[in-house]
Amino acid sequence: MTPTPKPEFSQACPIPISDYPNVVMAHGGGGRLMQQLIESIFVPTFKNDLLSQRHDGAVFSLAGQRLAFTTDSYVVQPLFFPGGDIGTLAVNGTANDLAMCGARPLYLSSGLIIEEGLPMETLWRIVQSMKQAADKAGVQLVTGDTKVVDKGKGDGIFINTAGVGVIEHNLPIGPGSVRPGDAVLLSGDIGRHGITIMSVRDGLGFETSIESDCAPLWSLVAALIDQGIEIHCLRDLTRGGLASGLNEIAQAANLPIAIDETAVPVREEVRGACEILGFDPIYVANEGRFIAFVPANQADRALGILRANPLGADASHIGTVAATTETRPIVTLKSQIGANRILDLLSGEQLPRIC
Amino acid sequence: MTPTPKPEFSQACPIPISDYPNVVMAHGGGGRLMQQLIESIFVPTFKNDLLSQRHDGAVFSLAGQRLAFTTDSYVVQPLFFPGGDIGTLAVNGTANDLAMCGARPLYLSSGLIIEEGLPMETLWRIVQSMKQAADKAGVQLVTGDTKVVDKGKGDGIFINTAGVGVIEHNLPIGPGSVRPGDAVLLSGDIGRHGITIMSVRDGLGFETSIESDCAPLWSLVAALIDQGIEIHCLRDLTRGGLASGLNEIAQAANLPIAIDETAVPVREEVRGACEILGFDPIYVANEGRFIAFVPANQADRALGILRANPLGADASHIGTVAATTETRPIVTLKSQIGANRILDLLSGEQLPRIC
Repeated sequence: MTPTPKPEFSQACPIPISDYPNVVMAHGGGGRLMQQLIESIFVPTFKNDLLSQRHDGAVFSLAGQRLAFTTDSYVVQPLFFPGGDIGTLAVNGTANDLAMCGARPLYLSSGLIIEEGLPMETLWRIVQSMKQAADKAGVQLVTGDTKVVDKGKGDGIFINTAGVGVIEHNLPIGPGSVRPGDAVLLSGDIGRHGITIMSVRDGLGFETSIESDCAPLWSLVAALIDQGIEIHCLRDLTRGGLASGLNEIAQAANLPIAIDETAVPVREEVRGACEILGFDPIYVANEGRFIAFVPANQADRALGILRANPLGADASHIGTVAATTETRPIVTLKSQIGANRILDLLSGEQLPRIC
Repeated sequence: MTPTPKPEFSQACPIPISDYPNVVMAHGGGGRLMQQLIESIFVPTFKNDLLSQRHDGAVFSLAGQRLAFTTDSYVVQPLFFPGGDIGTLAVNGTANDLAMCGARPLYLSSGLIIEEGLPMETLWRIVQSMKQAADKAGVQLVTGDTKVVDKGKGDGIFINTAGVGVIEHNLPIGPGSVRPGDAVLLSGDIGRHGITIMSVRDGLGFETSIESDCAPLWSLVAALIDQGIEIHCLRDLTRGGLASGLNEIAQAANLPIAIDETAVPVREEVRGACEILGFDPIYVANEGRFIAFVPANQADRALGILRANPLGADASHIGTVAATTETRPIVTLKSQIGANRILDLLSGEQLPRIC
């Protein structure tokens, strides 16, 4: 028996079947194909002012109080890795998306989709990690749901977290506030999370002492706000790495961005692993790094504030938003040898399922 | 290469390995095993006042405004069924959990976990259903996330939605407000959603004209509140059906409940399908039904209000919270032939993955 067909929708699917008849891994990879999915299916279907902010979350006011609301699902493989596990990621990732809205993370929900047969001990360890990460990030897990799917219809465990945070300042942080001439700050060295996952991935495993950079970022953001930095925009660098974060902001703000590659901190071990694997660290995922767009005349002070926190010890002033809007909103990278190249979005992700 | 072992946690997993070394389907089934998972792992680990409300969502105040926050993941199979699809469920299910907190649903998040190879047209249809359901329920989808997992590591699509709603009255709706002598109202006939899913399930399919009861419930709750019914508690009846909803409230309120089976509306087709399949409709899932606990002297008026809405046309006064707290918090059912039996939780769900 086949399901009753649904009534036809008047509008046809805007992604031509001839291009992509089926969803491919790259549609979830943080690159061009994911952007196409969002821009051609989700944004036009659900169109509303909050979604069109193209922010890391939705910001709205209730009873005169600005709140942020966001969600992410976590499907990382393997479930455990040096520096964390899927539980740590699920708490920090969503709390960080709230922080990127300038919101103090308050409450998280937890939606678990467990594959039948997951060892109970594994579930227990992941839940303990979520609790430890929540305590460290200053958030509470206040509501949840558990689903179990048949063996072979899941992959151990998937975790969705959604979060609610409170915005306790008047800064309109978001892509729409980026201004020509803004300084682009990066909170630390890049690529550690992606390379860590790769080092423990079945069939790719290699020896390294690198650990994931997975960490809660609110304390860094709070320090900038508390000390009067007029933050224009924040973006954490997950799928697609620094390159994707920069491109998303350039496009949403409709402004070109110029980056100096020599100013982008990359640990020797990450650089070495990337060379062997043929990866560019600027596209590799992070889970504890963000970029901040601030007025140029506040850049040095903001950098000092970031560096005063161990999580921002390697913060760097990596580039500038172009002073004119005359060119297309592209990201250019001045390389170590002085050449300029366009830093484009990849179609997908170099390594799938890093978060 | 094996993942680096995590530091040992001081406390061992409280579910004895000898009982359940692995997660089984019933841990997600809305019955006794799911309750054990929640009570022995989630509640003690994350313990906080909001979680211990044992409500359909977390209720908290921000800037003097009471809000509700909830989440659910949807893993229903098949994805499309008479009366709806996974997208309809994902919107109504979470909006209804907000309504059960007495909150007007405002905003939803959407977290999609798509299996590589899902036809793009299927995704498009589901997203259109989410939009139609959101418009009907009066909520906006304001933030989202998309992950893609390898073919064979998912099951078409899983959807998580989380929701934020606003509480615009002073009633302390929740299990803690249930009082001895309260009337138990049921908003309509039961079992349609579960039987519908079963009728289109691979290997189980049978002919029926039954459609899922999946529907947004806020208009019913709003009518009760607007017309001055002092609602004590609300619970929508999903996994585990009416029996589970009643048991959850009885236990959380620590009060026995007595139900009159003859007052519970069940459509002939549902009753017939249940007889053939050996199911009890009282345990079969619904997606557009709830129970309301109200003061006995308001029961008739509340029933009239429910029946004035097409979604509550078959509402019924099905039972009473015991007037004394002297007995254990069990649910007793007076059957059609006048015998009393204890209506217990099942270990899991009669049919897995109905939502």
